[in-house]
Amino acid sequence: MELTFNTLDLNLLDDLSISYESVNTLNNVTIQLTAMGQTGLGEVSPHTAYGETQGTTLAVLNYLKADLAAIADPFQFIDILDRLDEKLEGHAATKAAIDMALYDLVGKLLGVPLYQLLGLNPEKTTHLTYTIGIDSVDKMVQKAIAASHYKYLKVKLGSPDDKDIITAIASATPAILRVDVNGGWEARHAIRFINEVLVHHPVEFVEQPLAPGDLRGMKLLHTESALPIVLDESISDMNSILRHADVVDGVNIKLMKCGGIRNALKMIHTARALGLKVMLGCRVETSLAITAAAHLTPLVDFADLDLHLLVAHDPFVGATLDDDGKFLLPTAPGLGVQVKP
Amino acid sequence: MELTFNTLDLNLLDDLSISYESVNTLNNVTIQLTAMGQTGLGEVSPHTAYGETQGTTLAVLNYLKADLAAIADPFQFIDILDRLDEKLEGHAATKAAIDMALYDLVGKLLGVPLYQLLGLNPEKTTHLTYTIGIDSVDKMVQKAIAASHYKYLKVKLGSPDDKDIITAIASATPAILRVDVNGGWEARHAIRFINEVLVHHPVEFVEQPLAPGDLRGMKLLHTESALPIVLDESISDMNSILRHADVVDGVNIKLMKCGGIRNALKMIHTARALGLKVMLGCRVETSLAITAAAHLTPLVDFADLDLHLLVAHDPFVGATLDDDGKFLLPTAPGLGVQVKP
Repeated sequence: MELTFNTLDLNLLDDLSISYESVNTLNNVTIQLTAMGQTGLGEVSPHTAYGETQGTTLAVLNYLKADLAAIADPFQFIDILDRLDEKLEGHAATKAAIDMALYDLVGKLLGVPLYQLLGLNPEKTTHLTYTIGIDSVDKMVQKAIAASHYKYLKVKLGSPDDKDIITAIASATPAILRVDVNGGWEARHAIRFINEVLVHHPVEFVEQPLAPGDLRGMKLLHTESALPIVLDESISDMNSILRHADVVDGVNIKLMKCGGIRNALKMIHTARALGLKVMLGCRVETSLAITAAAHLTPLVDFADLDLHLLVAHDPFVGATLDDDGKFLLPTAPGLGVQVKP
Repeated sequence: MELTFNTLDLNLLDDLSISYESVNTLNNVTIQLTAMGQTGLGEVSPHTAYGETQGTTLAVLNYLKADLAAIADPFQFIDILDRLDEKLEGHAATKAAIDMALYDLVGKLLGVPLYQLLGLNPEKTTHLTYTIGIDSVDKMVQKAIAASHYKYLKVKLGSPDDKDIITAIASATPAILRVDVNGGWEARHAIRFINEVLVHHPVEFVEQPLAPGDLRGMKLLHTESALPIVLDESISDMNSILRHADVVDGVNIKLMKCGGIRNALKMIHTARALGLKVMLGCRVETSLAITAAAHLTPLVDFADLDLHLLVAHDPFVGATLDDDGKFLLPTAPGLGVQVKP
């Protein structure tokens, strides 16, 4: 298999701010895996919190080029990815790109879309959750109103204006709200804010209210919170799900955190066996990586796969949305992602 | 999809006795699922301990015929099987047959063997473990010697002659031994027998030494046993793995117990995340159901998939063994199982 790759630098249509960072560009890497006359596509969205940058991604891809060139049979995709995990620790986002490119390639070689390769019903996709990043209360309300055609809004909290924000947005839109704090609260504050403020609004659950390390706080919150808690930053692999199963109601699985479709499937099944709700999330990605995750949405409860909508001049077209904001999967083979003309 | 089925009654070449039962016939049901011009094959090996007989199997298949007839697209195999689980409790062996027939059908429609559909490396299959059922010490030794071309023997214990049996077999063959008690011991006896007798022989692990309900005994044994413990009768689904993860070293997953390939894959991944060893086991089955499981052996440690070797006039040919007793997977599409001429 031949591996080629390119950097992909794009502006966002708007700043995206959460409790601990703000971004306004996409600095990703796209990859191509070619074998047997077909090419699979993948995307890396590196994150410094996981020791990944665009630069380390290019270095890792260069390092893997020869290994991948020595492999002739893409149909051993699970075996190839297992060996990749043995060879290289970390760099989950780079692995996710290779993983999705392999699934894309195999789907193209067999002539079936990814959801068929996985045996899924494309009518069972979920609705997209649209993210409202942290900003002034007025701007957040404006954005929520502009996004009122979406059934579900993810409101980023963890700022001094949390109470005003949630109150204003809840009265300005009919959307069901999902709150994401990105670890910005302390346990005592979280319990008070959830039970005294959030319960009075149409808030479905709270995502990662506490810092990932605060397991004692999570235990307390799990007992005291009137709303379900979903973890994101705490969850990166199967073991992290097993470790948190008793203190949480759901998990946010991202291809870039876990290394791709194959590991996401394992995590979804394990989370289900543990009785947990499952969300699929994303980083700042184009329609390429978003579409890879969208193919898995028939298996999950929540699809927070919206950040491609923030990208100016997304070069790809893949999964789209119906009028109701529910994912429509492409029916072309593999991921079904095309480069825009 | 059209579902058809037939009873399959065959004699065994020899009685098979374990600690609590003895069988000398195979009374299974084979099924055919036809769609889009291809036919997938499946086999049910019912077990009364799970409320299954050949008769209940026929009744369940009749009950499901209309539902399956209403489904046009076999590529939604995971969704079809999820809905089957919702419609019908239990009857895991019947579900396993439908599951394997769907994978067979999809593999045939795509023109790829099952191991390729699953992304596995066919060179990474494991060695077959050959079962020596309970009999007189002399007969068990004779059988062990006759099977000495196999690297691994599964010796059934749980009889009054356990000590003589293991001592005689260990000195008669160079094979690595795996002991299976099928729940025939008590905890105190198990600890003594393992630590005073079995440790002196080339015994790799002990399977299901205690009755499935004896969780307190398992905890004690887990602390005290000098050999690893694998559970079989205790394990039927994902939840049973999670429940026993702290008191065991490995699990025996059988398609007939868990409902097929799809659930076996979930259980394998969850067991791995929990750090457990994984065995694939079987009931009294022909090469049809054995081959379905054999395709998964690249993912597991132990393949106790040998009971087709006991069947007189097995009508199918599928996975075979190399000179060393390692599985060779058929390369024909789907399961790659053919009806013998």
